[in-house]
Amino acid sequence: MVRVGVIGATGYAGAELVRILSGHPKAKITLITSRQYAGMRFDEIYPSMRGLIDLTCEELATEHMFKRADIFFLSLPHKIPMEIAPVLINKGKKVIDLSADFRFRDPAAYETHYQKHTAKDLLEKAVYGLCEVYHESIKKADLVGNPGCYPTSALLPLMPLLKAGLIDRHNIIVDSKSGVSGAGRSLSLSSHFCEVNESFKAYKVASHRHNPEIEEILSYETGKKIKITFVPHLVPMTRGMLTTIYASPEKKVTPGDIGGCLSSFYSGRPFVRICDGNSLPDTMHVKGTNYCDIGFRMDKRTKRLILISAIDNLVKGASGQAVQNMNIMMGFDETAGLAQVPYPL
Amino acid sequence: MVRVGVIGATGYAGAELVRILSGHPKAKITLITSRQYAGMRFDEIYPSMRGLIDLTCEELATEHMFKRADIFFLSLPHKIPMEIAPVLINKGKKVIDLSADFRFRDPAAYETHYQKHTAKDLLEKAVYGLCEVYHESIKKADLVGNPGCYPTSALLPLMPLLKAGLIDRHNIIVDSKSGVSGAGRSLSLSSHFCEVNESFKAYKVASHRHNPEIEEILSYETGKKIKITFVPHLVPMTRGMLTTIYASPEKKVTPGDIGGCLSSFYSGRPFVRICDGNSLPDTMHVKGTNYCDIGFRMDKRTKRLILISAIDNLVKGASGQAVQNMNIMMGFDETAGLAQVPYPL
Amino acid sequence: MVRVGVIGATGYAGAELVRILSGHPKAKITLITSRQYAGMRFDEIYPSMRGLIDLTCEELATEHMFKRADIFFLSLPHKIPMEIAPVLINKGKKVIDLSADFRFRDPAAYETHYQKHTAKDLLEKAVYGLCEVYHESIKKADLVGNPGCYPTSALLPLMPLLKAGLIDRHNIIVDSKSGVSGAGRSLSLSSHFCEVNESFKAYKVASHRHNPEIEEILSYETGKKIKITFVPHLVPMTRGMLTTIYASPEKKVTPGDIGGCLSSFYSGRPFVRICDGNSLPDTMHVKGTNYCDIGFRMDKRTKRLILISAIDNLVKGASGQAVQNMNIMMGFDETAGLAQVPYPL
Amino acid sequence: MVRVGVIGATGYAGAELVRILSGHPKAKITLITSRQYAGMRFDEIYPSMRGLIDLTCEELATEHMFKRADIFFLSLPHKIPMEIAPVLINKGKKVIDLSADFRFRDPAAYETHYQKHTAKDLLEKAVYGLCEVYHESIKKADLVGNPGCYPTSALLPLMPLLKAGLIDRHNIIVDSKSGVSGAGRSLSLSSHFCEVNESFKAYKVASHRHNPEIEEILSYETGKKIKITFVPHLVPMTRGMLTTIYASPEKKVTPGDIGGCLSSFYSGRPFVRICDGNSLPDTMHVKGTNYCDIGFRMDKRTKRLILISAIDNLVKGASGQAVQNMNIMMGFDETAGLAQVPYPL
Repeated sequence: MVRVGVIGATGYAGAELVRILSGHPKAKITLITSRQYAGMRFDEIYPSMRGLIDLTCEELATEHMFKRADIFFLSLPHKIPMEIAPVLINKGKKVIDLSADFRFRDPAAYETHYQKHTAKDLLEKAVYGLCEVYHESIKKADLVGNPGCYPTSALLPLMPLLKAGLIDRHNIIVDSKSGVSGAGRSLSLSSHFCEVNESFKAYKVASHRHNPEIEEILSYETGKKIKITFVPHLVPMTRGMLTTIYASPEKKVTPGDIGGCLSSFYSGRPFVRICDGNSLPDTMHVKGTNYCDIGFRMDKRTKRLILISAIDNLVKGASGQAVQNMNIMMGFDETAGLAQVPYPL
Repeated sequence: MVRVGVIGATGYAGAELVRILSGHPKAKITLITSRQYAGMRFDEIYPSMRGLIDLTCEELATEHMFKRADIFFLSLPHKIPMEIAPVLINKGKKVIDLSADFRFRDPAAYETHYQKHTAKDLLEKAVYGLCEVYHESIKKADLVGNPGCYPTSALLPLMPLLKAGLIDRHNIIVDSKSGVSGAGRSLSLSSHFCEVNESFKAYKVASHRHNPEIEEILSYETGKKIKITFVPHLVPMTRGMLTTIYASPEKKVTPGDIGGCLSSFYSGRPFVRICDGNSLPDTMHVKGTNYCDIGFRMDKRTKRLILISAIDNLVKGASGQAVQNMNIMMGFDETAGLAQVPYPL
Repeated sequence: MVRVGVIGATGYAGAELVRILSGHPKAKITLITSRQYAGMRFDEIYPSMRGLIDLTCEELATEHMFKRADIFFLSLPHKIPMEIAPVLINKGKKVIDLSADFRFRDPAAYETHYQKHTAKDLLEKAVYGLCEVYHESIKKADLVGNPGCYPTSALLPLMPLLKAGLIDRHNIIVDSKSGVSGAGRSLSLSSHFCEVNESFKAYKVASHRHNPEIEEILSYETGKKIKITFVPHLVPMTRGMLTTIYASPEKKVTPGDIGGCLSSFYSGRPFVRICDGNSLPDTMHVKGTNYCDIGFRMDKRTKRLILISAIDNLVKGASGQAVQNMNIMMGFDETAGLAQVPYPL
Repeated sequence: MVRVGVIGATGYAGAELVRILSGHPKAKITLITSRQYAGMRFDEIYPSMRGLIDLTCEELATEHMFKRADIFFLSLPHKIPMEIAPVLINKGKKVIDLSADFRFRDPAAYETHYQKHTAKDLLEKAVYGLCEVYHESIKKADLVGNPGCYPTSALLPLMPLLKAGLIDRHNIIVDSKSGVSGAGRSLSLSSHFCEVNESFKAYKVASHRHNPEIEEILSYETGKKIKITFVPHLVPMTRGMLTTIYASPEKKVTPGDIGGCLSSFYSGRPFVRICDGNSLPDTMHVKGTNYCDIGFRMDKRTKRLILISAIDNLVKGASGQAVQNMNIMMGFDETAGLAQVPYPL
């Protein structure tokens, strides 16, 4: 059993990590921390876990804690992981960071959209944890920057088609819709029940920090500068993310080509499901799962390709993919702990 | 007081008509019909109306009823209005039809997407009731085809910019999100609570019947063939529609040009509000109102214009616009009955 | 036109006051204040009001403001109204306070459940603003303590039956369920979207501060000490309150007696609707209205009376009743500004 | 591995059975049926299951199917199980029926509230599947009548206290609140999204068919006739049931007595969690689990005991308890397949 520490266990992504890891056949949580709830039992904060999870939150104390786990999940606000990760890596630990701190290859890009980067040397070692794409690098990685939820939902449908040259890289629009849990457990008027319920809106239009994250990966993988238009929206529901992507297929590309490319790229990848012609992704179909469902339609009249992906923002968009990364890093079955059958509704 | 008949008063759009008309200073409902609830009081079906609305549903009997009202709202499934409207028009009545039966100038377009049209001669007389655009024709109309909810939300932001030549007509994408009331009161699994709640999905991707409706109007008004890519989505909430439109501004077009064009086009139009630079439309801000809020952002990096509109699908998207049409047809103040202050939440 | 000041206009009850008063035929809002948003336009905080409400929030400055209105609504946290009301009353103004500060006749009861009362002399002058019961006193009042939402929903069904001696005063249980807007606009984890959505729970079981408020009024009106068991619950919806009351009918009391008593007590009262035998209250039927709907069933097998009431917690449970109080105090038609037809859904 | 047949697999309870059983370490689903979807793959109806559940719905044909499973779950409308169960029992199969057909000892009670009973002889053999109470009988049972959701939520808190004589059996009120999934997947206006969303109401007040079910069990177990007042309500959410019970403690009974009695009765029972003094049940804390959480408060002022229970209506209220019954019948660990850690939100 690998010993696992969850640093920042009481936010939504942290709690989801605890849920998933507690059912993992080869991992055991040996340590959880929480700034706000140090000293409290985890099941006092999440009473659904009573009788199932027997853990108590501790204050973070990296220097003394590192011995108690082999691998650390950092589920913390941006900036703190830059301070903690170097210590853990130096001690020979493996680290999966759910913040943006280790997602960018280019520190300048990070610094433009976040803040000064204080662990630039680690950026080279860090691997972007989009499992279906960086599988081989993740195997050898000690430090993984776990992708953002929006980037996961956009990159998985786009990557195969761009790499295969089936769509025009100059004309990509990503229209995403996210459940409210993506905004986390910190209080804000924009997550206040009566402000969100029975409401739908766009936010951070063309200025969300996941926009450069998507672009860096697409550009790197295709070797060409790719810019996308990205607009996120907020859906009055707890979990789920649906992303509708508009692209221009290259000449003579058929729906069969698109379907074939996606199916072939994700052949053997356990967590991507390509929808057949009769169905389309729905966030309800991925709730609680680590799946990314991908469907598409070709609008012949306008020669446009519409790609639709659905993920659970807290699972494949955060904690599930983080555990998938651990599985790959540790040489476990990639689906270990992630094959739970979801609630049908 | 003009005497008003609401034909099909117990569906959601019909009930909304009853609500709005009952507060109208110059109109009086003299007749309501319902196939399903004939003989029942309206407030038995909508008990919120008890003490406020004193009306009883009748069976539809056009030949005998025409005398009892001066203007008729038809809130019925497609196909039936084609049969009723000619009778009413022949009797000198004014008709506002909320179905698609009189929205198309081109009967072939209607027949492609709906069914055989049985009152083609009336199509010429019918005016498309997009009030802010067809104001002058509506004044003189006897028969108005009230626009669909999606077309209203797409046409209002697009029309001024296309007419002014500020955006490329070949590259328009309309990504719409609608509350569930748009699907009406008829039972179906797709409106069953547990199938919709906590779910977000696209449907009828690039194949919704409002797609040709939008295109016909845009093409007619610009004198050029315009095709758009249109994808509707379903939001787990009762009311509201947000439409995100992606367009390519022509060279040298600035945000100021866009804002100026919109503001100028809708100057003096009481039901279009252009958002300033700090705010963006939210369906909550138009709930229960006849407003269409329009905002935009220019994504300089990708040279793309993002237009966002919000309407209440049952008001500006259906019954409110229908009453606005009546106001224009009858020479009333355009806002009569429609200036109610909405619930703040 | 009476000039009205809304002190604390940007909380949910305050905003609802602004909505209702702005449609009032005999009142004009001349002043709104907000601690948090002083200097901002009201429609910046509630953008749905753009084009409809032209008001700017001011800092509260009682000493300088009193001249600008004839009647003041205080929609503030408990304790502040005790400081402001005396000043306004001294200046000859009328005051309707939506907090608990002037709801109790007995200062000791207030002090037990809230804090030290600093304006005890005013308690004698203050009238409890349950309009259907204290109509005559309200007419002459300068200071009204507007009832809490739970007390309104409990007192209206219970009062007639207790006064008529039809139910046992020793055996009353009040099980209430409230929408989330009752918790206000202040941030707290208990109103955070993901903590409330898809959740139902009781809170402050038998320890809510509305419990003594209900008891004081019932005891005073019947001349006998009445204690009730009161349990509030939180419903994942924005507006609405349903209260289910369990009582023991006195011997030989029939359903006809109950119905007759309720109908007769509320005969001529415009905002109480007694449901007939076929229907029962539903919060949806009162949303946005000032109605209290009351229904009942007699469980013959257990000789128990089940009373059910529904109100909109923000209207009859707060701001609507406050305006109704103003109407009575000023000699206006009791329904002025409150007869708006609600949204059917 | 025991071979399991799920008869009626595509309703909500049926789908939940498939979910739970598919993760069961000692059971294998060998057969699923569906009237409506015969011939279709299960994951076409519940696409979330794609890649996880490989089953195809068949037409029900009891005579030919019995050989294919050792134990059958019947998740069908009332009346059909009475026809099927005798055939299966005759063939030596074990049957767990989720309808009301085998819940009543007294056929007259069943016939009063449902219809003529056509398999009365089996009623004697049938065991009421409230696992925590009938554990010993269930061990030996071939036919289990799985309890209704409301009865489960009411009986678990009441049973220990009534058996111990701590509360007055003449004065029990059960106020229950259920999520919408309890109404099933069949279409009806009362489950139509816009009719339920943002609405809260009572229904079948003192006339719900679960009322006599609760009473029969309580009366049988205490040996005394017990009648309760029962009022169910509908909550605008998918899953969850909260039941608030009002009872009168016998003289000198202390909170400690109540807590002690509950804790002792459920000592060693894995699926009942007694809340300590600081917490109370919330449906969110049991969502997706087979737990029944029970909390209580004593209202000293009114000498009343308030018991609160929370279950997931589809799990402990239906399919989870059914699997728990199977575990007991087959001698498996009682928690087998039911120990999944739930989503934290």
